[in-house]
Amino acid sequence: MRLSELAPKLNATLRGDGSIEVARVAGIDEAGPGDLTFVSNPRYLTKLATTRASAVILSPGIDTPLPSLVCGNPYLAFAHAVTILEPPARPAPGVHATAQVAPDAVLGDGVHVGAYVVVGAGCRVGARTVLRPHVVLYDGVAIGADCELHSGVQVRDGCRLGDRVIVQNGAVIGSDGFGFAKDEAGRYAKIPQRGIVVVEDDVEVGALTAIDRAALNETRIGRGTKLDNLVQIGHSVTIGEDTVLAGQVGVAGSTKIGRRVTLAGQVGVAGHLTIGDGVIASAQTGIPGDVEAGRFVSGTPALDNRAWLKSSAVFSKLPELQKRVRELERQIEELKKR
Amino acid sequence: MRLSELAPKLNATLRGDGSIEVARVAGIDEAGPGDLTFVSNPRYLTKLATTRASAVILSPGIDTPLPSLVCGNPYLAFAHAVTILEPPARPAPGVHATAQVAPDAVLGDGVHVGAYVVVGAGCRVGARTVLRPHVVLYDGVAIGADCELHSGVQVRDGCRLGDRVIVQNGAVIGSDGFGFAKDEAGRYAKIPQRGIVVVEDDVEVGALTAIDRAALNETRIGRGTKLDNLVQIGHSVTIGEDTVLAGQVGVAGSTKIGRRVTLAGQVGVAGHLTIGDGVIASAQTGIPGDVEAGRFVSGTPALDNRAWLKSSAVFSKLPELQKRVRELERQIEELKKR
Amino acid sequence: MRLSELAPKLNATLRGDGSIEVARVAGIDEAGPGDLTFVSNPRYLTKLATTRASAVILSPGIDTPLPSLVCGNPYLAFAHAVTILEPPARPAPGVHATAQVAPDAVLGDGVHVGAYVVVGAGCRVGARTVLRPHVVLYDGVAIGADCELHSGVQVRDGCRLGDRVIVQNGAVIGSDGFGFAKDEAGRYAKIPQRGIVVVEDDVEVGALTAIDRAALNETRIGRGTKLDNLVQIGHSVTIGEDTVLAGQVGVAGSTKIGRRVTLAGQVGVAGHLTIGDGVIASAQTGIPGDVEAGRFVSGTPALDNRAWLKSSAVFSKLPELQKRVRELERQIEELKKR
Repeated sequence: MRLSELAPKLNATLRGDGSIEVARVAGIDEAGPGDLTFVSNPRYLTKLATTRASAVILSPGIDTPLPSLVCGNPYLAFAHAVTILEPPARPAPGVHATAQVAPDAVLGDGVHVGAYVVVGAGCRVGARTVLRPHVVLYDGVAIGADCELHSGVQVRDGCRLGDRVIVQNGAVIGSDGFGFAKDEAGRYAKIPQRGIVVVEDDVEVGALTAIDRAALNETRIGRGTKLDNLVQIGHSVTIGEDTVLAGQVGVAGSTKIGRRVTLAGQVGVAGHLTIGDGVIASAQTGIPGDVEAGRFVSGTPALDNRAWLKSSAVFSKLPELQKRVRELERQIEELKKR
Repeated sequence: MRLSELAPKLNATLRGDGSIEVARVAGIDEAGPGDLTFVSNPRYLTKLATTRASAVILSPGIDTPLPSLVCGNPYLAFAHAVTILEPPARPAPGVHATAQVAPDAVLGDGVHVGAYVVVGAGCRVGARTVLRPHVVLYDGVAIGADCELHSGVQVRDGCRLGDRVIVQNGAVIGSDGFGFAKDEAGRYAKIPQRGIVVVEDDVEVGALTAIDRAALNETRIGRGTKLDNLVQIGHSVTIGEDTVLAGQVGVAGSTKIGRRVTLAGQVGVAGHLTIGDGVIASAQTGIPGDVEAGRFVSGTPALDNRAWLKSSAVFSKLPELQKRVRELERQIEELKKR
Repeated sequence: MRLSELAPKLNATLRGDGSIEVARVAGIDEAGPGDLTFVSNPRYLTKLATTRASAVILSPGIDTPLPSLVCGNPYLAFAHAVTILEPPARPAPGVHATAQVAPDAVLGDGVHVGAYVVVGAGCRVGARTVLRPHVVLYDGVAIGADCELHSGVQVRDGCRLGDRVIVQNGAVIGSDGFGFAKDEAGRYAKIPQRGIVVVEDDVEVGALTAIDRAALNETRIGRGTKLDNLVQIGHSVTIGEDTVLAGQVGVAGSTKIGRRVTLAGQVGVAGHLTIGDGVIASAQTGIPGDVEAGRFVSGTPALDNRAWLKSSAVFSKLPELQKRVRELERQIEELKKR
């Protein structure tokens, strides 16, 4: 595609020869003739001088002879450019001969159902949704339009996914919540989990992530939220819109997480809490109580990030601090003798 | 069902109009006419005044005009009520046409084998057990009666499950233990893992949980134990009865965990340890050595919970403590000059 | 097999009656007549006196009347002995009638393709490789020779596995990297992940482990590296040769991990870092920055292991340290009055 045609699609200003054609997007080190590259991290500006790319996406105010597509968010524009120049190979609509689709299941126009998929009774699958091989939908599942469920995904009965939901391989939606009541003998009786999971529009669920169904009502993942791989979402958790949970995060049951929250890798959140809008938790943080909106927390138990960094710095010098206290005690004894 | 009929089934005392009929169980906020609700957490007592439920399960000594089922453990009674009023939809017995069942595999009466299930040579599946679609049993697997294996569960050769075992979606039982020996060149040679996994009666295994087979003998999960999602159980681990491991717990190889132990979310336990009966570990605790029975531990490395809370409180004030020490040093210098 | 025949195969010196036959390997407690056992941990030497094994593998310099195979690395020799005496049951070559193999996929000699396996367009599977039931290979996947992919493994398009790669059940290779760019409205747009995953020869991937594809280039796992279960490898991560990642480790995107690195259970590594050759991180360590080759680190944030142990020891006595400081302040006040 010519740069002059691509620039408006990316909301970018063309600078240089608009007749240049680019076919692919490539990283700045690997790019060659015919490639479009991008710079979104100032650390990589020096590479502009040596890249072999035919054109580059970058921020305003950067000097380079390379034909450029100038915009405010090069990283975002790169994402769009990939989608435009290299549209994903989409499997053809149709139902594989080996798929087991219940007679009363309703499949929208252009749906792709892969090999060995199981679609249970009363399921609804929206237009153009792709179910890769080996996806299993129990009875009564509703999936919206333009979704993609990768191979090995399991969705339990009654759960609902909105539109444009992407689910990476092996994820489980609607497993039983971890509900048990101790009886008189100290044994655990199972609490039946009769609620469902609701995943709103534009959510992405990572590989091997588990979202438990609620005991009675619903576990809900808000619009636009992104869950990374190997994440655990307990029963009756509610997550707001545009929130991000990185790899291996765990959220225990009945906790409410707000909008635009960011939980970094391996963060753990206890149950029955409220995490306010815009909260950020750094990697491995352990959150045992409510966190007000807008706070940035770290450590276990979670403290304000800045406080935690300062305390951690002193932690690394604790043996020395202990020695200083011992020395003070010795000096005080001497002074008392005098 | 009439309250007068339900009360004895729940071991509860009826208070009020026994002719009232309830059809479903619902949470106290969502309940409407015809619903039975429950209160097990004192925090929710105020909602009794406004709930629209027809009846409520609760503890003795609570004043309410609502028809009540009074018992010592409302949470447990609620669990039983759900099972009685809304018995789970059980798939009909039979073997799906697409299931691959080895000719010498033995299926008990009333077994349900779903679509695309693979049952290997010499397998035994007990009466009324349900294998949901896409379950894979390698050769020589033995599953007891009244079990339910959800879709995507994988059980490796020779492993044994008892009666009434529930396995959530995608769990893996019998993966190779992580056994490698370093050779002279610094490379890792694989130690063949020829042992098995034994899961005793009434165990529940969470979604996407992995239980490794032993190198030579067995990895064993004791009767009634509950494993949450995304849990890792290393080779040759032994877990006692009625123990609970919450989400994303990891237990390294050859460790023995006792009875009635509770490990909260994301706890890590090193290998070759003994964790005594009744131990509790709070979330994210890291256990590097044996823990005597009955202890309550927290932190990494694990301390007594109370000690850890106190130390954590001082940790949050370490910069101030360091300042106070510096100030003391300054004052001591002044005093020494005088 | 006679000991005299087995000894040279294990690079061991025979001591005692070479005509003794052993059929199996067993642990020192469980071994009986006809079994070969081993001692690799000095803690178990006392058991030599009471074991019922017919022969034992052990280090030089240990006194015992038992027929012995003496060598420098009994643990490694035991691994070889298992493979020799009890060669793993290998499924017969052939393609199951229910497997869906694309017409242009190329399968090497002696390949085993199990029930319900899906092999996509343009895939290549090397000689003698075993694909257990329900494995899914998207289009363009290349798998080397002598590999074993256990049931439920998913490999996404274009990914490449070398020779002798073992993948435990349910693992996912090539899931989308966690790439999102925030737009002007604060919403997340997906960055298409068009790169691949390359897994080199002799790697083992644990059960339910996820290895994300790169955005543009590749995520690469070096020769001989071993990944345990429930591990998360982010997009564009590079791992060197002969490195070991234990259960539930998480490595964020674009980090480079060197050779012969050991990350213990539940370690977390931030993104865009360099972890040098031979680094060791103890369990649950959180690594937020580069780590030079050869260091042994612990804690969050990571410190040198020795420093962390010392600081942790003082941490456990922080309430007392605070008291001592308070007492010093009191004594200083008294002294100042005098």
